[in-house]
Formats: sequence, structure tokens, C-alpha cells
Amino acid sequence: MAVVKSMAVRALKLSPAVSFRLSRCGGGAKPLSVKSFSTVMSPPSKAIVYDQHGSPDSVTRVVNLPPVEVRENDVCVKMIAAPINPSDINRIEGVYPVRPPVPAVGGYEGVGEVYAVGSSVNGLSPGDWVIPSPPSSGTWQTYVVKEENVWHKIDKTCPMEYAATITVNPLTALRMLEDFVPLNSGDSVVQNGATSIVGQCVIQLARLRGISTINIIRDRVGSDEAKEKLKALGADEVFSESQLNVKNVKSLLGNLPEPALGFNCVGGNAASLVLKYLREGGTMVTYGGMSKKPITVSTTSFIFKDLALRGFWLQNWLSMDKVKECREMIDYLLGLARDGKLKYETELVPFEEFPVALDKALGKLGKHPKQVIRF
Amino acid sequence: MAVVKSMAVRALKLSPAVSFRLSRCGGGAKPLSVKSFSTVMSPPSKAIVYDQHGSPDSVTRVVNLPPVEVRENDVCVKMIAAPINPSDINRIEGVYPVRPPVPAVGGYEGVGEVYAVGSSVNGLSPGDWVIPSPPSSGTWQTYVVKEENVWHKIDKTCPMEYAATITVNPLTALRMLEDFVPLNSGDSVVQNGATSIVGQCVIQLARLRGISTINIIRDRVGSDEAKEKLKALGADEVFSESQLNVKNVKSLLGNLPEPALGFNCVGGNAASLVLKYLREGGTMVTYGGMSKKPITVSTTSFIFKDLALRGFWLQNWLSMDKVKECREMIDYLLGLARDGKLKYETELVPFEEFPVALDKALGKLGKHPKQVIRF
Repeated sequence: MAVVKSMAVRALKLSPAVSFRLSRCGGGAKPLSVKSFSTVMSPPSKAIVYDQHGSPDSVTRVVNLPPVEVRENDVCVKMIAAPINPSDINRIEGVYPVRPPVPAVGGYEGVGEVYAVGSSVNGLSPGDWVIPSPPSSGTWQTYVVKEENVWHKIDKTCPMEYAATITVNPLTALRMLEDFVPLNSGDSVVQNGATSIVGQCVIQLARLRGISTINIIRDRVGSDEAKEKLKALGADEVFSESQLNVKNVKSLLGNLPEPALGFNCVGGNAASLVLKYLREGGTMVTYGGMSKKPITVSTTSFIFKDLALRGFWLQNWLSMDKVKECREMIDYLLGLARDGKLKYETELVPFEEFPVALDKALGKLGKHPKQVIRF
Repeated sequence: MAVVKSMAVRALKLSPAVSFRLSRCGGGAKPLSVKSFSTVMSPPSKAIVYDQHGSPDSVTRVVNLPPVEVRENDVCVKMIAAPINPSDINRIEGVYPVRPPVPAVGGYEGVGEVYAVGSSVNGLSPGDWVIPSPPSSGTWQTYVVKEENVWHKIDKTCPMEYAATITVNPLTALRMLEDFVPLNSGDSVVQNGATSIVGQCVIQLARLRGISTINIIRDRVGSDEAKEKLKALGADEVFSESQLNVKNVKSLLGNLPEPALGFNCVGGNAASLVLKYLREGGTMVTYGGMSKKPITVSTTSFIFKDLALRGFWLQNWLSMDKVKECREMIDYLLGLARDGKLKYETELVPFEEFPVALDKALGKLGKHPKQVIRF
């Protein structure tokens, strides 16, 4: 990011075809037709682009992109805010199984305001707030042009930092609570990585359903403070891993029922702790691997304890042609955020300071809240 | 087994209550009532008994048990044959989660001939061949008295060694093919421990359904011979573990489709090989852990490959009140065995030589076929 850090932004020398792809990511490949009336064009856009895969702080740069045509079904959106998620970093690194072809604009979710609409667009008007839903590549730029059906109009009363981040993390938490084990009020779930945004959302969404949460966090300086924060969100029990270094973790259940569902985003010992908590026939869902350690399971856990291990990947779920269902859930989650029933910490960072936000997201500057670019 | 080896059988000094429990395992606790007519009694029985948990070759002994009453709903069965299964050994060792209270008679499945029936028994007659179905503790004895509903009458034309062993292993193979993933003709499954009886049954039962099998066996002296044996049973591909030490095991699939279902009875590297073969969204079912090594799985296998890991325990399935379904499947399997469509090796051993059979079953005398006691 040396170029960006010095703000010596240089325009990409892009062929028209590449330029088209960059600013119209996901917009299909319709032939451009010469029109007899004046063509609507987007403003020029400033974007975080990577031409090749690699470490994000070395392969990304700010690029000025020329205006593109806003065709009849297109909507031009002036981006308001977009987060830097770990999956965005993995896409740039080239280690994510599904990723746009390079060169590409970074980012996958975010919120923007409609700036201009094509002649056939009926459902959206300038001034509306929209999010790409399902999420869609290329949100790290000032103006995004995509077809109308990419965009979902949202309630403008929801704080922008939640609107920008509502899909990737909160929707993961919601789907994981819905898709694997039928849960009723009075049940419990167990999870590691509980301080992650998904973890915080699990706590709050579970509580709204009358479901208790048993939360496992890393041992670290400030873990008492982290415990208090999670309890303030509604966590029933919060343990650091070392506290669970006991023969029978279930002796620590207190009045809570044994959980039938567990979530793992850490791997290694933290995953084993989730498994230990599960009741017979329980399911552990893995959605991350922060420790970079694999999951190790005894044979008897499968045979005699009848545990099931599954995985969750939001992108896989979203690919199942569930646009309507996805948007209904997004509205539900945004409503909770607006009403203060779903909370998590983010840090808004001006677009100009993207390199610093990226360094924070990469963990190079200690622990920071989720970085959200403010355009 | 020193006492047994010298055949210096001594009668247990049992209280009537204990004696009752030993020869009526599972027979419930009805009050004995003095009857005005002559009471039917079983012959005295000779049984393999363990008074405490421990190594089977030190805690088991032959015990002469006194006659017990054959009550109105009881059936007295003269046992013909019963196998020594690994789970029998685990029960004696005390490491099996569900096990009879000690003192207990060993064994869990077997075949016998009806010797006498109680006055209210209508469905069975002396001379019928029966198996306890679902299986039931205490088959390692010459006469077993249990209620009529314990026993399932079978076709006498089935070879006794198959009748004695049809439930624990073949039924496991059948259920695992049925219960986890819908399979159609043309599909494939992958398994390790393919030379086990369950493994051999999987090969044959899959083939009858038009399902191909990819089989993984240990590297050992005679593995070429083992491969040929499995291929003669219908195995499509058989690999030793070292052959699969390649970057992409799927390059060895040939014309077979990627399997959606895998079976693991080994753990460790052999389980990882099964996982590598599975297609996206596939399921691995663990039903044994012969290597005594755990199963290690990467985070990405769950998230991006959407693998599911489950377990199968026949005893758990049987506890689901599926007597009728269980017996229908047993009849199906016995029919296959009778017609030579389901084959596996066993070694019939006279009851008097139980200690040698036990040593073979414990692996102390090299590799031997499944040991089946012939009463």
C-alpha cells in the first residue's frame, strides 16, 4: 500500500473491457448499444483495486476509474460505508474458494445511496439507501453501478455502520441458529470465539429466542473486561479456555441445559471444548478457524456420543437462490440493530485512511473493532 | 482363563437372585409364583461368566448354572453358535457405554434351537431356529431362557455361522448404507478398514444396489491377496494406504463418481483418506476406531467442502424401538447369506476351546477370522 499511503493515486491503464468489468462487477455482459438519447453515466469512481492475489497491503491500491454507462436496468449507487471482513482479505490473498477474477475491486458488502437509475428502474429512486443483497463483489469504491436486482432498499433509520455490515456476520449467526438443530426457548447453545461479531450476534439473537449461551473466549489480557461486555449483551456464561481445563466441563453448566448445538470459529482445543459441552446427539457447526489449527475428534464422540460435525459458509447458503428469504432476514436484523437489540462494535474510518484500516484489519496494530470504510 | 483351560469348571456360589439374573438376562423381574402344576425347568447351563470388568482372558470363566424356571411367556433356547465380537470384549473390559451389570454372561448375538416353551408361547416351537433380535446379552451359554418376544424365528437353511453373526456386523453395514445419504445405482461409497466383516458386507450390499466401492486397507504382508479377495467380493477399487499418499487421491477415481458417503472404522490417517475422497457436501460415518487414533479434520473441509461427520452405533439404532424393521432386515440379510450373495469368513470353534478362540479374538495369536463358538 505504499502508493496509497502517500496518496499518490495513479489511474490504472485499463482497456475498456477491463474497466467495464471493474466498475460493473457482477453486472453481466450485455452488448452496449448506441442510443439516440443522452446516455446516463456514473461519476468517476475511486476504488481499492488488486491486480493480482497476494498480501492485501502489498497488492491493493487506490485507482481512479472512469465513468461507466448506467444502462436501463442499472442503478448507480454512491457508497456510504463498507467493512473490511476477513473473507475480503482472503479473497485478495487468493485463498478463498470463490473470488472474482483479477483485476478486481475489493469488498463484498456495504451500504450506499442511490445516485442515479436507468430508464427502466422502477423500484429505486435517488436518495434511497441500498445494500447489495445477496452481497456482491466490489463494494470498496465510491460509485458502484449494478443491475437493479442486485440492490435491496433498506430503512434509512438504521445506523450506517450496521447497514454496511449486516449480512456477512449477523446473517451467519442467524442462519446457524436456524439451519442445524431445532431450538426452543429454554435450550442452550455453546460457542467459542464468542467475542467475534458473529459470536456477539449469536448471544443476542439466541437471547431474543429465550436460548441461553455458553461462551468460550481466549485467555488474554483484558479477558475479564471481555466477559463483562459479553454478559452485558446477554451471555449467560462466559469462560476463558483455561477455566475449562477441568475433567468435566459440564459440572460448570449450573442450571443451564446441556447444549444440542455448538459453534466453532477457532479450531484446536477451543473446538474440543465445544464438543465436550455438547449433549449426546449434539451438532457442532464450524464457520471459522481463527487458530489455524484443525479439529480433532475422538472415535467415541461419534459412535457413543453420536455427535455430528458440520460446516457453515454463508456464501454457499446465499448461492441457493434465496434472495427473498435473505432480504427478509436482513430487514429483521436491521430492525433489531435500529432498535438497539443487536449491537456490536465497529470503527468508521475515512476512505482516505484505508491503508491504516487495512493494517488494523490485518491485526498488525493490535486488537481493533471491525473496520468500516466511510466513503 | 486358567480355570477354564484346565476345564476344572466350578460352579459359581451364587445366591438365587444372582443365579436368576445370570441365566435370565433381560428376562425382567416377574415375581415367581408357586404353581399347582408341574413347573418347566431349563436344563442346567454352562456359561462364560465374568464377575468383574477387566481383561477378558483373566476375568472370564466357565460356570455351571443351575436350571431355571421357564415361565409361561419364556422360551428356553439351546444355543448353537455365538460369535466373539470386539464389542463383547469391550463389554467385559467395562469400556463399553452400555453393558450388563456384573456378574454377567458374555456374548450379545448368536443362534440357537428352541428347546422348550412356556405355556403361553404360541409363535415358537421346539426345533425352531431363533436369534435374539434385537441382540441381547448373555449368548455365551448352552441354554438361554428369555421371554418369547426376545426371539426371532429364522430360516433353518441359512448356515449357522451366518445366523450367529448376522446382526452386529452385516446389519451395521446395511444401516450405514441406508441411513445417512440417499444413494442410487451408479453412485459410489468409500471406506477404510475394508477387510473387516462390516467392510466386506458394505462391498457386497453396495454392489447389489449398483453402488461402487472404493476400499482402503492397511499396508501389510499379504495386502495383494487381501485386495484380490475384496475384488472377488465385488470391490471396484482397493488401495493400500501408502498408495494413496498422493497429492490428489481423486486422480485415482478412474471412471467412478466422487463418493458422497464414506465409512471410517480406523481413525487417524485412514480417516483423512476417506475425507479426501468425499465429494463436496459428502458425509463420513465413523463406526469404529481400530487404530485408536482420533479423527483430524481441517476447518476448510467443513466450511468450503461442506463435509459432515457423523457416527453410527448399532446399539443406538436398535434402541429406537425398531424391532419389526430390524427383523425384516435380518431376514433379508439371512436370505442373502443363504443364497451365497453375502459372504465373509468365520471360524467355528468348539465351546470347550473358548480360551483359544478368545485369544484369537484378542489378536494374541495373529490374524484369524471371526471366532464363532460352536456349542
